[in-house]
Amino acid sequence: MEEIKLFCPATIANVSCGFDVLGLCLDSTGDEMTIRKSAEKGIRITEIIGADLPLETEKNVAGVAALSLLEALQPYCGFDISFTKKIKAGSGIGSSAASAAGAVFGINHLLGNPLSTKELVFHAMQGEKLASGSAHADNVAPALLGGFTLVRSYEPLDIIAIKAPAELYATVIHPQIELKTKDARSVLRENISLKKATIQCGNIAGLISGLYTEDYYLIGRSLHDELVEPVRSILIPKFAELKAAAIAAGALGGGISGSGPSVFALSKGRENAEKAAQAMKVILEEINVPFEVHVSAINPTGIKIL
Amino acid sequence: MEEIKLFCPATIANVSCGFDVLGLCLDSTGDEMTIRKSAEKGIRITEIIGADLPLETEKNVAGVAALSLLEALQPYCGFDISFTKKIKAGSGIGSSAASAAGAVFGINHLLGNPLSTKELVFHAMQGEKLASGSAHADNVAPALLGGFTLVRSYEPLDIIAIKAPAELYATVIHPQIELKTKDARSVLRENISLKKATIQCGNIAGLISGLYTEDYYLIGRSLHDELVEPVRSILIPKFAELKAAAIAAGALGGGISGSGPSVFALSKGRENAEKAAQAMKVILEEINVPFEVHVSAINPTGIKIL
Repeated sequence: MEEIKLFCPATIANVSCGFDVLGLCLDSTGDEMTIRKSAEKGIRITEIIGADLPLETEKNVAGVAALSLLEALQPYCGFDISFTKKIKAGSGIGSSAASAAGAVFGINHLLGNPLSTKELVFHAMQGEKLASGSAHADNVAPALLGGFTLVRSYEPLDIIAIKAPAELYATVIHPQIELKTKDARSVLRENISLKKATIQCGNIAGLISGLYTEDYYLIGRSLHDELVEPVRSILIPKFAELKAAAIAAGALGGGISGSGPSVFALSKGRENAEKAAQAMKVILEEINVPFEVHVSAINPTGIKIL
Repeated sequence: MEEIKLFCPATIANVSCGFDVLGLCLDSTGDEMTIRKSAEKGIRITEIIGADLPLETEKNVAGVAALSLLEALQPYCGFDISFTKKIKAGSGIGSSAASAAGAVFGINHLLGNPLSTKELVFHAMQGEKLASGSAHADNVAPALLGGFTLVRSYEPLDIIAIKAPAELYATVIHPQIELKTKDARSVLRENISLKKATIQCGNIAGLISGLYTEDYYLIGRSLHDELVEPVRSILIPKFAELKAAAIAAGALGGGISGSGPSVFALSKGRENAEKAAQAMKVILEEINVPFEVHVSAINPTGIKIL
């Protein structure tokens, strides 16, 4: 195989009660990437459509992730990468992760899959490090593995893949304001009360339990974030109203997608997810903030070969 | 039915990464309780064998839990309660919880089970409030429901029962030193870093995942407590050595049972649990601290009718 075309999905990190450890994979929104083997060693980013991103390999998220993989595998050949960005940078649904995950998945596939998909997470994380300064895995892991993923530990890296219940749907609304990850990070408090940490532990444990038992209402009850949402949501216009509207329309619960500004809701069934989308739209239309909205099943497999 | 005899099991609260939210039920260690219907309304504690505890209903953990249930149910009759304590008070394996849970389970049963076992948790918690000043559920819930239990939330009370993998065994060693719950609480820090809270969330999520997938090694990897063990373990003689010895002998992991001083380990299979017990015994024998040791399957059903 000389060339591969990929769908590189958007992802929701944190998932409310899972700050910095949980993520889930979307099905309906993602970039397209083409990777072609080349006799010339190294990585070249040949074309990017839909976003103004650097073509220099060392400055490009996909390029840096690919270089990390190449250093590990030392293949006899090189790769040319081109992609069409459909996930907006800074939206909070894993735009950089889609590029990083796509690059390492595609190259590994063209080389006959010497690494397992889980082993690719480390290399994709190097792209995230370029994008945000921290080699986090909570978007690249679900992009690569699909479903929900838990980063149990970073040292050593321990990623657990968890199947999503079949009727679980996500709604994401992206208010098109600029919210830098740096600013979203800076509002976080370095210290929190032991009591709040305990409540967070109860909720993440409840969410994991709900995923395994397909208990949608337990999933909904568990979607509460004691640690980050109370401070970070202040940066998102009408956050409380968006979340409340989604739940009133039939969603199980919701929160901030990644570091925002996108807001997500989870619902049982596509119909409720569509209703949540409609209810959230109304809120942003009232304040004339432009937005994009996505309704999606949970993608069970992650990146897809087209 | 006029009389019921019960086995009221010991329990391990916290289970390392599940501070204040997780608990599990032991199978081999517990109290015996007899409850008899009486034409005279109210609750009477008629006899306690094996412990020097107050017989006055309002000062007795079982009595207070029973009174809470009676207030809710307003039955036409009363109850006489007698019990034999085999779980030592202050051991950290749910001595007061066994009494509180037994009393409400037995009375509910004699009245034809008007409440579900989950609904009994609230009433048993009132006994815990008398014992320790806080109406916590992390021992009474597993005593009533068996297996592992998660207290997802206190307000509203939301208890999730989780089945334990069949080959999971617990080892508990109780160094017979006095460690007051009050002192074990006082060493806790009110505030912790967001980073440590995130690590804790990863581990409790990993543990829950391991329980559902029967992944014993994931359970073992997840048994790390970032929040409480580092400070509380200082009060337990040779804690680090006990835990390390259990793991070296074949246990998956371990930690402090409840607020201590008991130390627990979880193992795959009874043989490993016995080896862990033997290894921990040697540590306490060396320093001449008297101890009791228990090796137990995880009790799948909680309180048993004898």
